[in-house]
Amino acid sequence: MFNDENKTICAISSPSGVGAIAIIRLSGSQSTEIASKLLRKPERFLKIDAGKMMFATIFLENEQILDEVLMVKFIEPHSFTGENSVEIYCHGSEYIQSQIISELVKEGASVAQPGEFSKRAFLNGKMDLSQSEAVADLIASSSKEGHRLALNQMKGQISNEISELRQQMLELVSLMELELDFGEEDVEFADRTQLIDITEELIHRTNNLIESFKYGNAIKTGIPVAIVGEPNVGKSTLLNALLKDDRAIVSDIPGTTRDSLEELIIIDGLKFRLIDTAGIRNSDDIIEKMGVERTYKNIAKAQVILLMIDANSTDKEALIFIKNIKKKITDDQYLLILINKNDIAKNELSVSLKEYAPVIKISAKTGENLDSLSKLMSSWVNSLKLSETNLILTNNRHLELFKNSNVALIRANEAIKAGLSGDFVSQDLREAMYYLGEISGQVSNEEVLGAIFAKFCIGK
Amino acid sequence: MFNDENKTICAISSPSGVGAIAIIRLSGSQSTEIASKLLRKPERFLKIDAGKMMFATIFLENEQILDEVLMVKFIEPHSFTGENSVEIYCHGSEYIQSQIISELVKEGASVAQPGEFSKRAFLNGKMDLSQSEAVADLIASSSKEGHRLALNQMKGQISNEISELRQQMLELVSLMELELDFGEEDVEFADRTQLIDITEELIHRTNNLIESFKYGNAIKTGIPVAIVGEPNVGKSTLLNALLKDDRAIVSDIPGTTRDSLEELIIIDGLKFRLIDTAGIRNSDDIIEKMGVERTYKNIAKAQVILLMIDANSTDKEALIFIKNIKKKITDDQYLLILINKNDIAKNELSVSLKEYAPVIKISAKTGENLDSLSKLMSSWVNSLKLSETNLILTNNRHLELFKNSNVALIRANEAIKAGLSGDFVSQDLREAMYYLGEISGQVSNEEVLGAIFAKFCIGK
Repeated sequence: MFNDENKTICAISSPSGVGAIAIIRLSGSQSTEIASKLLRKPERFLKIDAGKMMFATIFLENEQILDEVLMVKFIEPHSFTGENSVEIYCHGSEYIQSQIISELVKEGASVAQPGEFSKRAFLNGKMDLSQSEAVADLIASSSKEGHRLALNQMKGQISNEISELRQQMLELVSLMELELDFGEEDVEFADRTQLIDITEELIHRTNNLIESFKYGNAIKTGIPVAIVGEPNVGKSTLLNALLKDDRAIVSDIPGTTRDSLEELIIIDGLKFRLIDTAGIRNSDDIIEKMGVERTYKNIAKAQVILLMIDANSTDKEALIFIKNIKKKITDDQYLLILINKNDIAKNELSVSLKEYAPVIKISAKTGENLDSLSKLMSSWVNSLKLSETNLILTNNRHLELFKNSNVALIRANEAIKAGLSGDFVSQDLREAMYYLGEISGQVSNEEVLGAIFAKFCIGK
Repeated sequence: MFNDENKTICAISSPSGVGAIAIIRLSGSQSTEIASKLLRKPERFLKIDAGKMMFATIFLENEQILDEVLMVKFIEPHSFTGENSVEIYCHGSEYIQSQIISELVKEGASVAQPGEFSKRAFLNGKMDLSQSEAVADLIASSSKEGHRLALNQMKGQISNEISELRQQMLELVSLMELELDFGEEDVEFADRTQLIDITEELIHRTNNLIESFKYGNAIKTGIPVAIVGEPNVGKSTLLNALLKDDRAIVSDIPGTTRDSLEELIIIDGLKFRLIDTAGIRNSDDIIEKMGVERTYKNIAKAQVILLMIDANSTDKEALIFIKNIKKKITDDQYLLILINKNDIAKNELSVSLKEYAPVIKISAKTGENLDSLSKLMSSWVNSLKLSETNLILTNNRHLELFKNSNVALIRANEAIKAGLSGDFVSQDLREAMYYLGEISGQVSNEEVLGAIFAKFCIGK
């Protein structure tokens, strides 16, 4: 089925860059033999027990020492991939890491494709497809809630739900198909009312999962937050205050922020992606104009928009700006108006802005009310969460397949209600099952697998 | 001597960031006990053999699963630090990494200071000080030559030289001090001519090491290369062509590059730090003016200056610019004149520029002659290398101590020549020995050690 499955693969599995220690991983039948060739006395490693750490010196072809390392081997099926595997723990310089890989390649290993270790684990039955995908999500998760969702999926929460749903569908299908066998006798084994109830229950459960994606996706990818306002209103200062960091260059010269920066911040275990934007004003500077256009694009992409107004603006200035931005915002987005520089406000705006969006008076400089701002943002995200189910979809691919399954279920349900022949119903149910099977990987093809694992990081 | 030496420390030892697998390391007498408390059944890990990998599930306090990991323990003195140690191989999400650290801290571990593992290895006699420093250099090395120098030092090349030099000094000192014991009898055990020869040999050897630093430092830190020229001459394009990458934003609008970018590139196993600079011209734009000032600072810091001239410049324009830059350059710096846009040159510059610096006609856009440029740069660096010695100093601290030692040796040599009493000579020689002892750590104090290890990365 897969050309490369007999190859022994290798990759750097630790985060990229420099550190005290890095990990090089091999998987495939020849892992131990290939790794042992980097040593002066290969037999030491060939003979050592699986799972036992060994200190070793790695040499380059020219007999020069490359590094002193620890290494360990695992024997199939007792490894992550289910194949023979080796891990090498080397000094974490980029030079050493890349040289070890190139020595392994010289000795016959292939450089692993992204996700190839996980793909092998899936093909060898160590985990199903949604669990493999959860491993990638687990690694990418940077917040408490994101970690929890990925871990639940890795431990099989989605797999179990799918397996239950498919089981119920299979029972329905069996009933329908049994009837067809007795077709000419015109018997009905299945009570039609009960069939309608069961399909509606299935529709309800898949609906819940589909709905849960709104929250799940926000958790997984981070909630995009655009910080917008006129030049010099304090956008970069707010970003820095929220980050408690000096990432953005702040200056007193309006128009300093030319590029849109994006920074991650965790609030109450939730990940937000803060996007500082170029100040919006009319400008002849070409580069600055490009920045303003990008700001509008960022507003469109954001889920939360922090609209900043200078506390010393006139009512008219504030209203014009708010109305201008409000035009660009949809009902799905959460708009907050921040009256900034409250610490040096000379007088209050007399116009009421509350009708446009919730308003908070803050000072990005002194930190005033930034806690309230954080709380509003996290409450809004939590309001996306459904109370009815603990199952949360976070994966786009799963979403599409659940939607397809849901559509097929609705068709089946309608067919039953319309009194259509059992073979129509059974066909729809089989289709609904098929899509769920694609999620867990019971149904799969090389193209789909290729697309899934290509999104993994190298070394996983 | 050290308050914290009984504490068990922990840190992330893999490169920072996200990857398939990350490594958490503990060291100290309680390593095994503390790590075992993260498991449901601690006794499994307490009983397992040292060096044997164990699969385990790590729980948070609230009984929620944090991760599935591999872990291994090492028993003193058979570990990097010479103490009991544990390594945990977890999924490489930043969230999991930081949570495991925080669980270990709850169970009694302290977060390791930068370099604390290496410091303990030094204090426990696993390696001398210059070797510990070489471990840090090895990790930081990103080029073949940088790796070779660090590895030689880690394997004890500098330590051996120091040990030889100190041995010779000790013999001299013993002779001088023996004479002093017989002082009133006015005997001379040591032939003065021979003493002079030996001290001069020592001076010569320390001189060579001091001289080698010029090359060693360039290798270690990377050779700074400033790319300078008038706006729109193609500096960013050249940077990108050399990097074969799109790091710098290139546009047709003069003055696009506001910040000085710095990028690493390896040529012939040597590391260069390429610095793209803001175009030099008179401008009223405050931010751009700041950029030009920074360009002059970058020229001052660079060892190689690539001065770019547009092939379509007039002779006069080219000469004014070259003379202007030439004024800012010292004899220690390597200036190359690049005539860029050679692919679209309408006519040749008629003035000879060779008298100012070597000239190459290139096209950053088509890649024409960039190989020749790379070769000139690496040849220049290699010309800094001394042929006489294989020992190369790369460490500033070592340089200063070798200089001090050298000065003391010169004093000793002059004292002998001047026929001064043996106790003067012996005092100078003891001082010369003392400084070398500081390099290897035979002589050390907490302040010096603190300063050295503070520069290491966390987890090393």
